[in-house]
Amino acid sequence: MYAAILAGGVGTRLWPRSRQSQPKQFTDITGSGRTMIQATADRLDSLVDPAHLYIITGAPYAQLAATQLPNVPPSNILHEPVGRNTAPAVGLACIAVRRRNPHAVIAILPADHVILDTAHFRRALRRAAEAAQAGYIVTLGITPTHPHTGYGYIQRGDPLPDLPIGDLPTGDLPTGDLPTGDLPTYAVQRFLEKPDLATAQGFLASGDFYWNGGIFVCRVDVMLDEITRQLPAMAQRLQRIDTAWRADPNLGAATLAAEWPSMPNISVDVGIMEHARAVATVPLQAGWNDIGSWDALEDVIQADDDHNCVAQGDLLAVESHGNIVYTTDKVVALIGVDNLVVVDTGDTLLIGQKRQMQKVRTVVERLQAQGRSDLL
Amino acid sequence: MYAAILAGGVGTRLWPRSRQSQPKQFTDITGSGRTMIQATADRLDSLVDPAHLYIITGAPYAQLAATQLPNVPPSNILHEPVGRNTAPAVGLACIAVRRRNPHAVIAILPADHVILDTAHFRRALRRAAEAAQAGYIVTLGITPTHPHTGYGYIQRGDPLPDLPIGDLPTGDLPTGDLPTGDLPTYAVQRFLEKPDLATAQGFLASGDFYWNGGIFVCRVDVMLDEITRQLPAMAQRLQRIDTAWRADPNLGAATLAAEWPSMPNISVDVGIMEHARAVATVPLQAGWNDIGSWDALEDVIQADDDHNCVAQGDLLAVESHGNIVYTTDKVVALIGVDNLVVVDTGDTLLIGQKRQMQKVRTVVERLQAQGRSDLL
Repeated sequence: MYAAILAGGVGTRLWPRSRQSQPKQFTDITGSGRTMIQATADRLDSLVDPAHLYIITGAPYAQLAATQLPNVPPSNILHEPVGRNTAPAVGLACIAVRRRNPHAVIAILPADHVILDTAHFRRALRRAAEAAQAGYIVTLGITPTHPHTGYGYIQRGDPLPDLPIGDLPTGDLPTGDLPTGDLPTYAVQRFLEKPDLATAQGFLASGDFYWNGGIFVCRVDVMLDEITRQLPAMAQRLQRIDTAWRADPNLGAATLAAEWPSMPNISVDVGIMEHARAVATVPLQAGWNDIGSWDALEDVIQADDDHNCVAQGDLLAVESHGNIVYTTDKVVALIGVDNLVVVDTGDTLLIGQKRQMQKVRTVVERLQAQGRSDLL
Repeated sequence: MYAAILAGGVGTRLWPRSRQSQPKQFTDITGSGRTMIQATADRLDSLVDPAHLYIITGAPYAQLAATQLPNVPPSNILHEPVGRNTAPAVGLACIAVRRRNPHAVIAILPADHVILDTAHFRRALRRAAEAAQAGYIVTLGITPTHPHTGYGYIQRGDPLPDLPIGDLPTGDLPTGDLPTGDLPTYAVQRFLEKPDLATAQGFLASGDFYWNGGIFVCRVDVMLDEITRQLPAMAQRLQRIDTAWRADPNLGAATLAAEWPSMPNISVDVGIMEHARAVATVPLQAGWNDIGSWDALEDVIQADDDHNCVAQGDLLAVESHGNIVYTTDKVVALIGVDNLVVVDTGDTLLIGQKRQMQKVRTVVERLQAQGRSDLL
């Protein structure tokens, strides 16, 4: 099994810890001691050999990726000369893997998500790989916990017929991994854009809908066939890159640089998944969180008796409840304050009401207007 | 004119910036760029020659005082071997000054108060010196701005009869200083302990009451006569120190060390002022503040349009009002928060509701219980 981690974005919602020089996926956003891309790679341990792991990122971050993931061969770190959306990145990963195994199964994973229950995640990923082996593009459907209006949704269809187990290792599961046999797998009826609240509430009530977390598994030949069918111009550009790469990796890189600016700015969901021929979903109920803003930390960090969550820092709370604290290594004393987010990076200190943290964007915009690129 | 700055206390109310290793008087508590004792000395510029300025502090802080006040002769920095209250410290200052001028006028000032209007302060101090020259112990009566229940009060009596101008310089006032001629000066009718709220409201309404800020001016011989009359045992100990000092400063210091532990733990207000024979008061309306807790910063720092006060730090406020910010040199972004105090020292971060900052004591107590003396 192969995997590609998509690590191209530069999120500002997690300023001040996410910076242009070190976007959130290369940062320890949750205080776990590992950066998000490291945690993403860690979750693939025992499923994907590091030699089979690819990283797709922006050119400025290739060195960061190499440093943070020393077990990944440098030639597996592919960098886009300019930022495009996910469809070209997925295509790039697929042609790279195809050169090694034309029918390889590949998992595509965003670099910046948290998944608390690794054992369940691996089990779902292996189940998805089984279905992918049989020819499906298999998306993990995040079991929704509330009627979120910020995500795309997946409506499931009928359960898939019995799948062949394929040639994946199933008899020798790592400790803690569970067999996949009883995991349901469904055909996908349709992908849905971000709903309004009433629609999202209906989705949640029906039980047939999942969040689209952007994690999926497929055979590289299946994906490349879909690209050829649905995005033929992009497929031709990918083919030219691949042909050059097979001749000489340096020529491949040069062709990539030449072709990339003309790649369509389109997501894999819109460009490929919505109209793919055989799409399936495996439900994932494993504490998935995309850390959309700082207040999400309380969903992934164990709170203390006063409902305060500490990612880092030595908290001393006096009559203070429901706060989220992530500072440098220091004592943080709170007196009579509730529901604050406190993020201290040394050069910046962010303090906000927990339910207003999306306004970090305003802070970032003002710093941009002030020319404080050193802090962005 | 001589002056003695009393710098003996170790306040915990302004933790984390006030520390045992560097109490608030040796710290820049208001973000002015000067420590409180430096600002106190600065206010005496042109009134008191540095050679006439004495510092009374604890032994651990003598070096800090010398470093922060390089113009003060080291021999003027007197340090108590153990902490006592203000009466012995005032006596010590008076015998030291008496050795140079038996009838010198001395101003006694706490090291840790803010006075915003230096020109008015100097004018009141000069007026007080005129009355002191005539034999009064003259306390500056802080014109109250609200019915504070945490201060002692002074009730004024009749205006003093016309005072001789004495030998103080009046014709050659520093720029910005005002003549003292029209400043009222009153006999003191009585000193009052901290009142309850209703009593304090009555004081404020009557217009005859002032806060006792602990700033006073007297002739050293007048003060020492009062000490001899009211605290004769203490006077004898002071006399032994003085006799030894006149013989040899080293012997004086040794005698001080021997006598000090037996000094009474009594304030100059209770021990001397309340029953002194001739006490007067000069009103002071000059933005006096004893910075009793962090929320007092908003009384001494100019607020911005959103009523946020920044002592230090680069504030970026989004929908945030009435906050007080004093950090290290960093950007502080606030989102949707009101009436917070934020104090960041690098190793500690304090965030509290403005009206609950007296609970800093609880924080300090907990740190003591944890053995975190490094932070206290």
